[in-house]
Parts: sequence; structure tokens; C-alpha cells
Amino acid sequence: MKKIDEYFYNRRSVREFEKREVERDLIDALLEASANAPTTGNMQLYCAVVSDGEDKKRLNGAHFNQPAAVNAPMLVTFCADFNLFYRWCELNKAKAGYANLQGLLMGVFDAVIFAQQFVTLAEMNGLGTCYLGTTTYNVREIAEELNLPDMVVPLLTVAVGYPSVVPEAPGRLGKEAYVHHGKYKQRSDEEVKALFAEKEQREDSKGYVAENGKETLAQVFTEVRYPQSMLEEFSGVLRGYLAERFGEI
Amino acid sequence: MKKIDEYFYNRRSVREFEKREVERDLIDALLEASANAPTTGNMQLYCAVVSDGEDKKRLNGAHFNQPAAVNAPMLVTFCADFNLFYRWCELNKAKAGYANLQGLLMGVFDAVIFAQQFVTLAEMNGLGTCYLGTTTYNVREIAEELNLPDMVVPLLTVAVGYPSVVPEAPGRLGKEAYVHHGKYKQRSDEEVKALFAEKEQREDSKGYVAENGKETLAQVFTEVRYPQSMLEEFSGVLRGYLAERFGEI
Repeated sequence: MKKIDEYFYNRRSVREFEKREVERDLIDALLEASANAPTTGNMQLYCAVVSDGEDKKRLNGAHFNQPAAVNAPMLVTFCADFNLFYRWCELNKAKAGYANLQGLLMGVFDAVIFAQQFVTLAEMNGLGTCYLGTTTYNVREIAEELNLPDMVVPLLTVAVGYPSVVPEAPGRLGKEAYVHHGKYKQRSDEEVKALFAEKEQREDSKGYVAENGKETLAQVFTEVRYPQSMLEEFSGVLRGYLAERFGEI
Repeated sequence: MKKIDEYFYNRRSVREFEKREVERDLIDALLEASANAPTTGNMQLYCAVVSDGEDKKRLNGAHFNQPAAVNAPMLVTFCADFNLFYRWCELNKAKAGYANLQGLLMGVFDAVIFAQQFVTLAEMNGLGTCYLGTTTYNVREIAEELNLPDMVVPLLTVAVGYPSVVPEAPGRLGKEAYVHHGKYKQRSDEEVKALFAEKEQREDSKGYVAENGKETLAQVFTEVRYPQSMLEEFSGVLRGYLAERFGEI
């Protein structure tokens, strides 16, 4: 192996930041460099809305005032943007037909690849970041706050700032859990248990189980963090938003 | 600004590769490093299936035998993987309820972030890569070939090999096209035209227009590469696959 920069092993998502503002010129330059990441057919079906100061504060509520959002001096909202491309097509005797599931995925892939390249570049430049998964939950509120036109779908928000506290490594599953060769390898129950054993034995995992009064770590995920009723409720919100502002998927 | 490694400005997607095989150990190590990228709630709702040799050749057809697929010695298929997580939940008195639109997006975000970190690491280590957007089109054929169980959704495939030809920069839109501050800035028709002017004037763009017998570059996208009828047909295929193997979105 040639080398894997140690950054890639040591990176952490950061939720506590210094008070100082992040330089807008730096963020613009990082976004511009990130745009060299791959994109579907070179269409660049994405945009980023950079919010700081009072603009940022107005977004906190849409992210449930979670600490990473409230603590960060800047939020960058990454969206699938079909609006600009559609406008260009209309001005060029072309009728785009991307308002369907495969079309949406082109914009989702473009926006997430762009976002992740930005996260890598920001962290390599000394910034701390944390993805906020709440963007697709409160999609209407965020679209209104950012003045998004039709055909722009907010997907992921990245909290950005200079780190004040860098957390411990959260620990990842061994690569046997997610790397397959040739065919997907189905595991026995014992193998599944073994893949998660180290994660379950971590002190922080045991703490989550205890503080939530649950019996297993899996229940913390399914009953506390991502319960079915919550995901279904917000799926309805997002479906409605897409039907109104994008198209039928 | 501290620094932006020149890699990030100079990277290119590569579609022509040397004959030599890619070392599996290298790919496994790159995937393992990539797993330190952010993931929703540390759930790692993704997997990668690495195909080389005869396994790789059997996948070419599902990617329409496009040159990047045929030329590459290796394909890595990135999937949203809920199967392993569901199995773990079932073994731990927990009932996961992720089979909905928001749940699917958690897996999509996780898989694409993981894939893009892998692309960055692979390219930094001298490999060439190209995303194949055909994965969600022929999703059934790919799932069958890779022996994917229910709750695993193939999303993006990365062609991997040692580059034999590195193409010219494809050119990206200026950052005014995709970076906004505070609020999304709606453009006038003249501004939209200006944002795309350089792209339209490129020699390769003019070539695409001429060789397809079209009047504008926008028509090459909407009538040749991504026509509505094709996207709608494959949206139907993907919806059917999700309904059968994942859940109602």
C-alpha cells in the first residue's frame, strides 16, 4: 500500500466548537474545490447554502436545537438542485424529465458526494464538522428559511466550526461486517452476534442502554433514536414536500 | 487558508485502465479506512461487494457494457444494507422500523458517504475510479448476481483500476452556480445563461451537440443521455424492487 493519510483513520465528527466565526472565503474555496468530486454526467445537480450569524440561529429550531447545530457558528445545507438545470434547459429548447425516483437519486448522489468531499476538505483544514440528519425531517421549515425555490430538495446539513472538544473514537464494526467478495455472505446468528460484540461491550454503549432504561443496545436505536413511528411521520412530511415541490417518486 | 491538497483540484474520473489486477488487500484496507467517514448514528447502514475476475465480467451486462465497466478490472458495488442491522435487532429483542422513506435515506446517505470516502482514498493511492450510475437501473440483475438478501439495496458502483488514460478536466460551473449565502439566490434568465456559457463553448460540448444531431447542449442531456421515458421506466423498476425487497417508500 502506498499510504493512507492518517487523517482518514483519525477523523471524528465534532459537536462542540470555539466561539469564533468561520471565514466565509475559506468555506467558499473549500466548496469550490469540492465541486471537482464526481457528479452525474457533469450536471452538478446540487447546491450549498451557507448560513452564519443570525441566519444560522434561525435554523437551529428546524434541527430540534440539537447541540451540534446550536454550538456551531455555521451551518451548510446541501441540497439536490434541479432548479438551475431546469431553468437552463427551458432557455435552450430542452425539456428535462427528472421529476421521478431515478432523477431524484441523481441529485441525491450528486449532493451527498459533494457534501462528503466538503467534509473531508474542511476537516483536513482544521475545521470540525457534524452531519445533521434532521434536514429531511423538517424539510418545509428549512426550505422556507433558506428561500428555496421549487425543484430544490434540502438533504443534509453540515455543522461547521473550529473544534473545542474532539470526542473519543466512536468505534466502527470490523470490515467483515461490510466488505464482501464476489457474493454477499449471509451470516449465521452466531456470526452476527460476534460482529456486534465489541460495540455492545463499549462503556459508552452500556451507558446509552442504562440511561435510557433499555435492555439491549439495539433497543436504544429502534425505540429511542429512530423509532418507527417517528420515521413514518417524517416520511409522510417528506413525501408531501416532494409531491408539491419536486414530483412523484 | 491552510492548504488544499492539489489532489482535490486535479482529480479526474477514469474510464480506461491498465490490464493488471487491483490488489484485494489494498481495496480492503481502503474500505476499512473509509468506514471512519461519518455514518447515521454510527449504524453503518452500508456494505460494499468487491468483484474482480470472472465475477466482475458477469456484472458488465447489468451496466450496459459501458466502457468504464468493461475496461475496469474491478467493480465495487455500494449498497444500503439494512439486513445485517435488522438481524442484530432481531437477536436483541428490538424491532427496527426503517422500511420507509426516511429510513431508506439513512442508508443512502451512509452508503454514498462511504463510497465517496473510498473514491477519494483510492484516487489518492494512484487508482483510477468512475462511478456507474446504472446500478439503480438494473437493480434486480445486480442483486441476483451479487446474491443480495432482502433489505440490501444496491445504489452506486465504482469501477476501479490503474489508469491508462487520464482524461482532460471536464470543467465545472463557477461557484456562483452552486454556492449561496443566507438565502438561495434566484437568477435572471441572463444570469442563468452566463453561468452555463463557458460549458457550452467547450470543444467537447460542441462535439456532443454535433455528433447527436441536436441544436443545444441541454438537449443532449434531456433527449440523449437522460430522457424522461428512460428515467420513468427505471423508476418503475426500482420502485418495484423496493416494494418487494425493502418496503413502501
